[in-house]
Amino acid sequence: MAHQVTIKDIAKILGISASTVSRALKDHPDISPKTKRMVQAFAQKVNYRPNALALNLRRSKTNTIGIIIPEIVHHFFSSVISGIEKVAYAAGYNVMICQSNEDYNREVIDAQALLDNRVDGVLMSLSKTTFDHDHIRNLIDHGIPVVFFDRAPNEIEADKVFIDDFMGAKIATHHLIATGCRNILHLAAPSHLLIGQRRRDGYIKALEENGIQFNPDFIIKCDTRDDVFANAGKILQLANQIDGIFTVNDSTAIATMQVLMKNGIRIPEHISVIGFGDGPNANICYPPLSTVEQKGTEIGKEATQLLLNQIENTEDIYKPTTKTITPVLRIRESTLM
Amino acid sequence: MAHQVTIKDIAKILGISASTVSRALKDHPDISPKTKRMVQAFAQKVNYRPNALALNLRRSKTNTIGIIIPEIVHHFFSSVISGIEKVAYAAGYNVMICQSNEDYNREVIDAQALLDNRVDGVLMSLSKTTFDHDHIRNLIDHGIPVVFFDRAPNEIEADKVFIDDFMGAKIATHHLIATGCRNILHLAAPSHLLIGQRRRDGYIKALEENGIQFNPDFIIKCDTRDDVFANAGKILQLANQIDGIFTVNDSTAIATMQVLMKNGIRIPEHISVIGFGDGPNANICYPPLSTVEQKGTEIGKEATQLLLNQIENTEDIYKPTTKTITPVLRIRESTLM
Repeated sequence: MAHQVTIKDIAKILGISASTVSRALKDHPDISPKTKRMVQAFAQKVNYRPNALALNLRRSKTNTIGIIIPEIVHHFFSSVISGIEKVAYAAGYNVMICQSNEDYNREVIDAQALLDNRVDGVLMSLSKTTFDHDHIRNLIDHGIPVVFFDRAPNEIEADKVFIDDFMGAKIATHHLIATGCRNILHLAAPSHLLIGQRRRDGYIKALEENGIQFNPDFIIKCDTRDDVFANAGKILQLANQIDGIFTVNDSTAIATMQVLMKNGIRIPEHISVIGFGDGPNANICYPPLSTVEQKGTEIGKEATQLLLNQIENTEDIYKPTTKTITPVLRIRESTLM
Repeated sequence: MAHQVTIKDIAKILGISASTVSRALKDHPDISPKTKRMVQAFAQKVNYRPNALALNLRRSKTNTIGIIIPEIVHHFFSSVISGIEKVAYAAGYNVMICQSNEDYNREVIDAQALLDNRVDGVLMSLSKTTFDHDHIRNLIDHGIPVVFFDRAPNEIEADKVFIDDFMGAKIATHHLIATGCRNILHLAAPSHLLIGQRRRDGYIKALEENGIQFNPDFIIKCDTRDDVFANAGKILQLANQIDGIFTVNDSTAIATMQVLMKNGIRIPEHISVIGFGDGPNANICYPPLSTVEQKGTEIGKEATQLLLNQIENTEDIYKPTTKTITPVLRIRESTLM
């Protein structure tokens, strides 16, 4: 299928040479008005379009930006995409999105597909299973600039845009303490993930700054809805020793509130809960969740601006930068006033 | 930036002809082993890669499927994408996603970008602001097969995959009636949208089948969270006349429950609420929402299979089909047992 009419096809059908067709289409003075009319009318009739791939090849710019993200369904990533699109569209670029599904092998294929399609630049956030970065180096070695957001490899020098996870965790924990909590449980992400490490450090720092002794029993590795149900016994056992919970993300916070409430514990009267993310679920759950806004749209905009700077930079000197966006507290009804 | 090393570049640097370089890289017998070694070693050193665009041009197949969807953030569409990816990946195709953001002009640009990149086929769901279909005809006229899911134009002959909205609405309303509801409010989508029309018809049909008189006052055009807040007065005014609500989607149902509960109305004791969609929010809201599962993954799989049939179909005879997926009831705590 998918046959596109070529200059050769037109030449064959009209019984003239391909170069005559080509020159007629370009309105070349050597070609008679009669031939031009015939060729142009016929080209229109058969839907002839100068081959876009061939055009791209010549001008060597596709005006397309590629995105590789772990999961579209994740609200944070879809808000990053909105931010990317805003800046990219305004600058006249298209956006093509590939999903790695947290799978290293798929990420490699995506990177190759974007290279094959000659995108002008790539914005990416690493999958959780990516430990090797040759596919990224390969993009850079082919002159395709790459900017990272949220999850970036330490090993690669590139522009990087992060949310300030340490600061976000610190202000969340400060809010719990300011509203009277003294025994605060932290439901944490694995510490091999940078965000897990930084949010835990922010939690510990806030305790320290308020003269509260850090209790290692008050950190549980638990960062998904399923984890919460698996750890329900453990969390409920701690329930009468704690008055606040800071979770590494919103869905963990929401599932925790559901488990606690099912067992007669009132939020926030008995235990305050604060999350991290501020997706639409934070407004939908019961009670509405206090949380830290992750500013995905702003991250997407910043990352795209950095990428466009590189794409449109004609000089050879280029020094990678790292930008950090400060998150903001959103207080709702799952914490005390 | 983004300069890719070409055969010409290599020829110039090594001081030999481009055709010698080309033949050396192809291991042509006319070229001496010494020249081959030099060219091949140099090509490797400078990261030479046969131009992918040029290769695509020759084989005229990119093994890429393009998707145009209204909104990635919408759970239904992201589950369709999962379904598409499963089937496409298994068949050796990549997937590139473009988002129209419910904007006709962006949809036109997306279609052109996918045409320019010569995708092998396109899967799409129309934006709410698309009333003209020339950009779609343009894809089809260029031999790129298009399969629609969820939102499709009547005017275009193509494969189409739908959820059976009529049946879904009917089983949802039947469930309310079976659990004792007799006065059922329907919060509806605009009737110019096919899904709005079909879900309203299913609701009316279920009333009819149960001998319940249809009351036109019991339909309000209200299909977003914001709509619910704007119509809160109207809904609360009806509250003591009704015992059940069927909403056209989950987010409308969830916002409605929030409005009712804020005003002391208990769900489901006073009023039962059932939605349509079954995204993750249905488990997160309070009370957990009874709803109709929209089977996005299955729709994505079916649509992709239809598209692959067309892409890989070598015969010229092709007859478009429409597939309808039957939705399933998910009963939770917002309706009575």
